[in-house]
Amino acid sequence: MRGFGSDNHAGVLPEVLDAIAAANEGHAHAYGHDEWTARAEARFREHFGDQARAFLVFNGTAANVVGLRALLRPYEAVICAETAHLNVDECGAPEWNAGIKLLPVATPDGKLTPQLVAPRLVRFGDEHAVQPRVLSITQATELGTVYTPDETAALADVAHEQGLLLHVDGARLANAAASLGLPLRALTTDVGVDALSFGGTKNGLLAGEAIVLLRAGLDGPMPFLRKQSMQLASKMRFVAAQFDALLDGDAWRRPAAHANAMSARLAAAVDGLPGLTITQPVQANAVFAILPSEVADRLRERFFFYTWDEGTGEVRWMCSWDTTAEDVDAFAATVAEALGAPRAVG
Amino acid sequence: MRGFGSDNHAGVLPEVLDAIAAANEGHAHAYGHDEWTARAEARFREHFGDQARAFLVFNGTAANVVGLRALLRPYEAVICAETAHLNVDECGAPEWNAGIKLLPVATPDGKLTPQLVAPRLVRFGDEHAVQPRVLSITQATELGTVYTPDETAALADVAHEQGLLLHVDGARLANAAASLGLPLRALTTDVGVDALSFGGTKNGLLAGEAIVLLRAGLDGPMPFLRKQSMQLASKMRFVAAQFDALLDGDAWRRPAAHANAMSARLAAAVDGLPGLTITQPVQANAVFAILPSEVADRLRERFFFYTWDEGTGEVRWMCSWDTTAEDVDAFAATVAEALGAPRAVG
Amino acid sequence: MRGFGSDNHAGVLPEVLDAIAAANEGHAHAYGHDEWTARAEARFREHFGDQARAFLVFNGTAANVVGLRALLRPYEAVICAETAHLNVDECGAPEWNAGIKLLPVATPDGKLTPQLVAPRLVRFGDEHAVQPRVLSITQATELGTVYTPDETAALADVAHEQGLLLHVDGARLANAAASLGLPLRALTTDVGVDALSFGGTKNGLLAGEAIVLLRAGLDGPMPFLRKQSMQLASKMRFVAAQFDALLDGDAWRRPAAHANAMSARLAAAVDGLPGLTITQPVQANAVFAILPSEVADRLRERFFFYTWDEGTGEVRWMCSWDTTAEDVDAFAATVAEALGAPRAVG
Amino acid sequence: MRGFGSDNHAGVLPEVLDAIAAANEGHAHAYGHDEWTARAEARFREHFGDQARAFLVFNGTAANVVGLRALLRPYEAVICAETAHLNVDECGAPEWNAGIKLLPVATPDGKLTPQLVAPRLVRFGDEHAVQPRVLSITQATELGTVYTPDETAALADVAHEQGLLLHVDGARLANAAASLGLPLRALTTDVGVDALSFGGTKNGLLAGEAIVLLRAGLDGPMPFLRKQSMQLASKMRFVAAQFDALLDGDAWRRPAAHANAMSARLAAAVDGLPGLTITQPVQANAVFAILPSEVADRLRERFFFYTWDEGTGEVRWMCSWDTTAEDVDAFAATVAEALGAPRAVG
Repeated sequence: MRGFGSDNHAGVLPEVLDAIAAANEGHAHAYGHDEWTARAEARFREHFGDQARAFLVFNGTAANVVGLRALLRPYEAVICAETAHLNVDECGAPEWNAGIKLLPVATPDGKLTPQLVAPRLVRFGDEHAVQPRVLSITQATELGTVYTPDETAALADVAHEQGLLLHVDGARLANAAASLGLPLRALTTDVGVDALSFGGTKNGLLAGEAIVLLRAGLDGPMPFLRKQSMQLASKMRFVAAQFDALLDGDAWRRPAAHANAMSARLAAAVDGLPGLTITQPVQANAVFAILPSEVADRLRERFFFYTWDEGTGEVRWMCSWDTTAEDVDAFAATVAEALGAPRAVG
Repeated sequence: MRGFGSDNHAGVLPEVLDAIAAANEGHAHAYGHDEWTARAEARFREHFGDQARAFLVFNGTAANVVGLRALLRPYEAVICAETAHLNVDECGAPEWNAGIKLLPVATPDGKLTPQLVAPRLVRFGDEHAVQPRVLSITQATELGTVYTPDETAALADVAHEQGLLLHVDGARLANAAASLGLPLRALTTDVGVDALSFGGTKNGLLAGEAIVLLRAGLDGPMPFLRKQSMQLASKMRFVAAQFDALLDGDAWRRPAAHANAMSARLAAAVDGLPGLTITQPVQANAVFAILPSEVADRLRERFFFYTWDEGTGEVRWMCSWDTTAEDVDAFAATVAEALGAPRAVG
Repeated sequence: MRGFGSDNHAGVLPEVLDAIAAANEGHAHAYGHDEWTARAEARFREHFGDQARAFLVFNGTAANVVGLRALLRPYEAVICAETAHLNVDECGAPEWNAGIKLLPVATPDGKLTPQLVAPRLVRFGDEHAVQPRVLSITQATELGTVYTPDETAALADVAHEQGLLLHVDGARLANAAASLGLPLRALTTDVGVDALSFGGTKNGLLAGEAIVLLRAGLDGPMPFLRKQSMQLASKMRFVAAQFDALLDGDAWRRPAAHANAMSARLAAAVDGLPGLTITQPVQANAVFAILPSEVADRLRERFFFYTWDEGTGEVRWMCSWDTTAEDVDAFAATVAEALGAPRAVG
Repeated sequence: MRGFGSDNHAGVLPEVLDAIAAANEGHAHAYGHDEWTARAEARFREHFGDQARAFLVFNGTAANVVGLRALLRPYEAVICAETAHLNVDECGAPEWNAGIKLLPVATPDGKLTPQLVAPRLVRFGDEHAVQPRVLSITQATELGTVYTPDETAALADVAHEQGLLLHVDGARLANAAASLGLPLRALTTDVGVDALSFGGTKNGLLAGEAIVLLRAGLDGPMPFLRKQSMQLASKMRFVAAQFDALLDGDAWRRPAAHANAMSARLAAAVDGLPGLTITQPVQANAVFAILPSEVADRLRERFFFYTWDEGTGEVRWMCSWDTTAEDVDAFAATVAEALGAPRAVG
């Protein structure tokens, strides 16, 4: 029985597993000097523009931290939402591995805005303060919301006016692009994003994320930074082959769009149930809701999911590429039943 | 055509690929809270003893650096051979990620000895000097040599007498154990090793290494250190499944023993050829030799391998689990021919 | 003309300069192995209790960061007020030099309380989150407020119940003790403080701060941490001699009490002036006030001081050991005049 | 009784103490925004050239480590002599505070040469290896030897040809300049040195060292790096006043030349004594000698000094600005007597 714990509870897309098996042919040079890596790098240029430079790493923590290393000098800081994964779920990886000070900003929905960011854009040139150098946004956000291209462009403008760079934690960029019905570059390259983490694992890879540098001139140190940060795979072809499959045309879109659709289905099914409040716009593959904690506990006897906020009882329900309509319907029915709704799901 | 560049130029063992595919079933909790990880951890206890605690990571750089983090306070240092991978091939990862100062020791064959180590065991309590806390040896070494259990035990004794720990970089521990014809614990747990990196990738995994803490009481901080060091896989089951397959009984031994045998075959075939000198005992899966650099260049037209020492023209020829006798014989014949030997390989 | 910019704009207390000169006699062992250091260490035991272990460093940034290094493992975090000097005025020194993640808490007056801290005391044992290990408070705070012994004790209780330590940034501890009319230990050792930075420079030293570890068993690594953190003075006797003078009986109290008294005098003189609002209780040697920014600009033609908050126009006026009643009266008169008050200061 | 332990066992030059006292006048802006700092910075330009940018710090560890931070990216390395203070006496400060990997080179006399350095100038562009970026030499060396301007120029040429920078740890630069009878710039700026640590403390300051960047364009990040590295003095005027005095014309030369002369006197007095071998050329203020360890022990009953090498019994005798001819003669006579020389010192 599939639960709603996280999109990384799902396995590997069949086409990705096939690509791994197909790459298991004879010898290949290690550390990315192989044809699969060359192909994957070309795929990234297709999707993000000719100047895009992709560097494959093992996981999302690394994509963010090592990517930021390429953007920052040691006394430069990153402005991010208080809820950013970078800020709350990396066991201090930015601080430990790169000495990065984060400047967190409270937000209602996980999204930075020029207004919210403004109070952090101060003390330039003051040696007593870290110097803001990067705005980092998560797309889709940790709260399941999505920045429109215009919203991202507005942040890019603010950043660039002040000499900052705009970074996107795109662990779920595919979900955002699928939600907006846009190509990947329309929400990154085309609206001024300078660098991003492109997530593969949550969208059906076995393991693989990419640092994608969109602004020319940032990539020089990256080979050294990746190796030094313990993120250079020796048998790189097996990471690259996964991306080669996922980025083959719009192959990335189907699993992401499906996960999004399942969340929308779930939201539609439970919205309006007595005692349940959906707390965030459902724009990607997550539903956030508040419901009585004893109800949540009862649901957990059959379906796994996480409590997001112990204080309010808010829970997070995530859908993944392999969530089925039957999973959703069964879960929604159980929710309705647990809430005492007479015929919640038709 | 397979070359002799590195054992990580080979692909994935078929049984390991099968294990990955078999693990791709439904949902599993992320980050190691799954049944495959539990099984892999049990495998490590079978091979290294009940007290062994294994923590899976992505690559060898991380296995060494993150493992050492569990052994060291910030002002404590690691004594290692000057040729240690840790010292020369990690782009400063120990220094950058953990502030570790290495105390390198020159050796003739990549192996530390109590005598060689002694001059580094000084200045205890002197606040101006880093404090030696770990002896780190590589088994098999970067020069293809192997420590006997007695040699390892002697180093463990020296370490423990002075309050140090003995760490083994076991990127090729399987090759060493196969070379000695011993179980894994006979060259680690049973001779006083406190912690090790257990290599999977060079012995046929897709990607996966393990930090194995053998001394009780060292593992408490490890979950945090691994996560913080950007080495916690979300879909851990696919890393664990590989180890589950490799450590199923003595499954690890066959590929390692085969690679060793191929190196021995190669050494036997080229030893004594005019103008060629084998420079290190061939005890694992590498042959080190000096031959004229124009000859090496000619060989490279057909077979890839690395120059080890530009100054002396020393080259390294590595065999892997998929090197065939035909590969070796064809290569040896080419070497003989290039050296002008009349009928070097029969 | 003395301004109100900072208590570190003042020079050196005459008795401290005399102590430095008196220490300039012949040879002394370097790095603290001298009689002046022994005497200074004894002074700290007199003031903070027999178990107090003092380690002298050069400045306040270091006292905080290096002191915290003795309390933390790399994945452990520090809860502090958002306004803490540690958080806003160290150019990322905690993050860079020790990889420390700070968990900032918004406060109305620079003071943590058990209620404010509670939401941060979560996720213990969760490897994805830094682990709270230290509560750090500033005494007197950056906003010129003072914790009562009971308030500090309440925080110590909360900390200790959860396995945390209580740390005090005491850059102005003397001002706090003088404000409360208590001995130093009454607001530290006696109410459960585990470690502190004891400030000397802002209270009349040339340069010198002390890390004081109050809880037994924390001091072992400190000599190494101090040296490694570039804070071990070679001619330590000259740092120690300053503390020997400042901590001779209650010598520290007079300059601190005087600075406090000058702030109180200033606050009394300007309180109630039209267009001026004092924004924080004046409990130590600072006055925070909001007044029209054009008035502030006019005042600055004669007296230097800092704007605290560009948004609100809040300013900070600090008094120091050498501020005179005449300084204060002249300044207050100018403030009154600038605000158009008829006869503000009698 | 003055010993021969270290030049930092001596106190403060009277003129430096006077300068400190003279600076204790009223208020001054903190953190270097004061007239004394401006004057000290001008002094450095006088001695090292118009483009010289000096940043004052507290001690020599910091001058080296923070200075190197301005020259290095995180994956760049420093080539230095194995005996460099940076390598052996900083408790891992370069590694901890800046993640710097040092590439140590064995030398007979503490001095690098182009020949000795050559084997380290390899692997440029190889992401698995740290990239050599700085040659760091110590002048005068830790072994009391001095680089001639030509020797330094040759190293600068080698460095610059390969895209490296030449850094000088000048904790005893004054001794070297005095030894050579040259102005400071003749052994630094004029022979291609790019950055240096200029030592004050060992030449009679209370506490103060300077990072001096000689190559234009390196100084931009330095204010932030110094603050972040916990080396920004709040009452900077008192550090600056010391340098203002020491660099007033050739004021620095007299104490350094005197210390050198005392070492020469000592060497002359003991050279040729039976059982004593002077092991290094005496070119600055140190004498290195091997003598029977029981003799050394006997000498220590009256005079303090350090053993340099426990293995060989080599000792180090250092003279300082306040060592007197009487001190030297008394010590030399005791040495002679202890060695059983009939009338060693006339």
